[in-house]
Amino acid sequence: MSKTMEQIVNLAKQRGFIFPGSEIYGGLANTWDYGPIGVELKNNVKKAWWKKFVQESPYNVGLDASILMNPKTWEASGHITNFNDPMIDCKKCKSRFRADKLIESNIPQEELPGAVDGLDFATMEQLIEAHQIACPECGEHDFTSIRQFNLMFKTYQGVTETAKDEIYLRPETAQGIFVNFKNVQRTMRKKIPFGIGQVGKSFRNEITPGNFTFRTREFEQLELEFFCKPGEDEKWFQYWRTFGYEWLKSLNVKADNLRVRDHEKEELPHYSKATTDIEYLFPFGWGELSSLSSRTDYDLRRHMEVSGQDLQYIDQNNNERYIPYVIEPSLGADRVTLAFLAEAYEEQKISDTDTRTVLHFHPALAPYKASILPLSKKLGEEAMAIYQELAKDYMVDYDETGSIGKRYRRQDEIGTPFCITYDFDSKTDGKVTVRDRDTMDQVRLPISELSAFIKEKTAF
Amino acid sequence: MSKTMEQIVNLAKQRGFIFPGSEIYGGLANTWDYGPIGVELKNNVKKAWWKKFVQESPYNVGLDASILMNPKTWEASGHITNFNDPMIDCKKCKSRFRADKLIESNIPQEELPGAVDGLDFATMEQLIEAHQIACPECGEHDFTSIRQFNLMFKTYQGVTETAKDEIYLRPETAQGIFVNFKNVQRTMRKKIPFGIGQVGKSFRNEITPGNFTFRTREFEQLELEFFCKPGEDEKWFQYWRTFGYEWLKSLNVKADNLRVRDHEKEELPHYSKATTDIEYLFPFGWGELSSLSSRTDYDLRRHMEVSGQDLQYIDQNNNERYIPYVIEPSLGADRVTLAFLAEAYEEQKISDTDTRTVLHFHPALAPYKASILPLSKKLGEEAMAIYQELAKDYMVDYDETGSIGKRYRRQDEIGTPFCITYDFDSKTDGKVTVRDRDTMDQVRLPISELSAFIKEKTAF
Repeated sequence: MSKTMEQIVNLAKQRGFIFPGSEIYGGLANTWDYGPIGVELKNNVKKAWWKKFVQESPYNVGLDASILMNPKTWEASGHITNFNDPMIDCKKCKSRFRADKLIESNIPQEELPGAVDGLDFATMEQLIEAHQIACPECGEHDFTSIRQFNLMFKTYQGVTETAKDEIYLRPETAQGIFVNFKNVQRTMRKKIPFGIGQVGKSFRNEITPGNFTFRTREFEQLELEFFCKPGEDEKWFQYWRTFGYEWLKSLNVKADNLRVRDHEKEELPHYSKATTDIEYLFPFGWGELSSLSSRTDYDLRRHMEVSGQDLQYIDQNNNERYIPYVIEPSLGADRVTLAFLAEAYEEQKISDTDTRTVLHFHPALAPYKASILPLSKKLGEEAMAIYQELAKDYMVDYDETGSIGKRYRRQDEIGTPFCITYDFDSKTDGKVTVRDRDTMDQVRLPISELSAFIKEKTAF
Repeated sequence: MSKTMEQIVNLAKQRGFIFPGSEIYGGLANTWDYGPIGVELKNNVKKAWWKKFVQESPYNVGLDASILMNPKTWEASGHITNFNDPMIDCKKCKSRFRADKLIESNIPQEELPGAVDGLDFATMEQLIEAHQIACPECGEHDFTSIRQFNLMFKTYQGVTETAKDEIYLRPETAQGIFVNFKNVQRTMRKKIPFGIGQVGKSFRNEITPGNFTFRTREFEQLELEFFCKPGEDEKWFQYWRTFGYEWLKSLNVKADNLRVRDHEKEELPHYSKATTDIEYLFPFGWGELSSLSSRTDYDLRRHMEVSGQDLQYIDQNNNERYIPYVIEPSLGADRVTLAFLAEAYEEQKISDTDTRTVLHFHPALAPYKASILPLSKKLGEEAMAIYQELAKDYMVDYDETGSIGKRYRRQDEIGTPFCITYDFDSKTDGKVTVRDRDTMDQVRLPISELSAFIKEKTAF
């Protein structure tokens, strides 16, 4: 059976994955809070990323830079000047839109003079005029001219609200890495090639957030900036292109639902040599999970220019000095979490009269690795002892309410790979019944082997 | 030997723990970036907290709410009205100070009419006048009157900067938990007593941040809100008072450096029945790590009033209905990380001519659990195989540069509990030398036993 966003959003809310932010106050735009089950899922996603991109990588190290940065950073990165969306208002109903999105959804691709991203305001306005595009809200064709809207959230630090105290919430984690390039390279005595990984929140004042947690104003990034020697950038671009794609597949995302899209030359920003999007087929359509980018020496060069600091790398083997090239194989943490959730979701027909909702997460991503189910409340003490033993190693649930069948279904809905039933025989034979989420097969295992069994099955 | 903040700040910077934020641009106020070693330390602190306060707790579950919340939240919590510092300016040199801090550092405790926190502005101004307090910057006694300064960072969401789009960066993670109380209780089918834990960033526009990462405008919290039945709050207050204290001790903080300070009745805010600070003896003096607070039903009641939603708990056993009382045993993530760093730091005299800097972290907090040291670069391939095997389970370093003695010292400085030397005998006898960070003792262990050995020694 096919799945819809509505099904996923409902399950997410009902089973403690994701709640609307500030819900008791009617929410706040498109903000979302990860509930008890969701926070475990998302933490597991972050751990799985850190493990493969940092911990096991002989090249990479981690970083955790501040959200609040010196504004010169955004001057150097170009965000103050260029990080704008083209904004247009309907004069009639006062609704506000992104002009580029308005064009994209009203004019067929083949009638456009090129990628919408690359069009100037005059051309966009002509297109809206020529095609007599109507306001999606009220149907009128009566728009203002297009204006720039900077997407950075601005605030003031310190006690006066003057221009010199203006700071921004970072719109990307990347720049925290670039400004620390020398600090990291020097203190870790790193040799090129090496990368710096960072997991953290960023903020963009999107005009039209939407699609659940796919596009939100507050979001988390899984960022890697990989520094290499100019000339070796194409090799490393391919390396990380494969690495990111395989990481997703290794966590149970089917290749059929992934699309790797190389950008055309004319789509690329001036500083980029190549960009490849990895997209996932969400129920609402294809959406970008990762935008792998070959950024040349643009960022470090700009920071050198604006800061006056020397950010060149000195290769001590041959006394060469150069600004490294950068490959950026970054992923959106909320987006991949949503993709894993959508991918895992199934309304499974078990018989003519029976259907179950099950989340087939990779066991390493599953919020709970196991749930302990005492067959009777009289067995609570012994079952709780197993819970406490397993809880030392991973998140485990304990559920003593309702029939075993009902409890199985509840665990299926949150993707728990193993249900462990402690019954009246367990006391004498020291064994429990272990039921597999996906196959629904049951095996009887000695309690003493449980910990090792689950550890092996949930490894990543 | 005693230790100073300067030593700790220097080591932190030189060895990749903590760098000044945006350093290439001269920094930004008191912001700090966690470097490759620091991010591992801090992540381990967060993991150790989550493990004991959420994962192993039969009571508690986790949450990850947004930083951006509906502003009604801050109306209910009282932050819009009350979250102010008393600000005073020197008319002569224009320096700005917190009036309460100025009084505290210039007038002996016994000459004050009570806790400075509780004084009104008029009394504070009289004290400054009566004691002729001088400006700490220029020495003049010529101050403005005292004004309120709200500590929340304000920004605008959406495309217009009007009052209705004003939002705040959350000044505490607690409110994200309170507004989700019902969502969590319902979806997790939780029975009172239970708690909700959250790790996340908060922001306060402090007038005078300082003492390294102890007081910063952007900081991370380890927040737990524990909901219990009115009348059982004193029991649970004691429970979490002991729990938090023991958690710190179990991670190698000596009792001598901890102080548990119960607030006097007159120090308490009106909604609080009791507050106990757990303080640590930093090189700069005693500093608060945790402020355990008994908050009664104040927060949930306020949110009920402002939102109009029913946040009462229904006890289905006896059909009772009540607003739960709340115990808040929260810790500052950056502060405890700094405390662990300060506690671990030692300049150790080894002989008359030899001193080493060593960080005696609890192994579970150590950034690297082990470092692999090939005795010669010729042994790199075999040593790297061990590195790759261990890296599957935890962060491991690999260091092949300099004498073994020098490499030991480098690892001591970042607190690596075990150095593993692969030498020419290792090839034939399958054993490596394992050197202990604290005792500096060496044992020879089979390579096949390494993984289990380290796992056991670094468990928490």
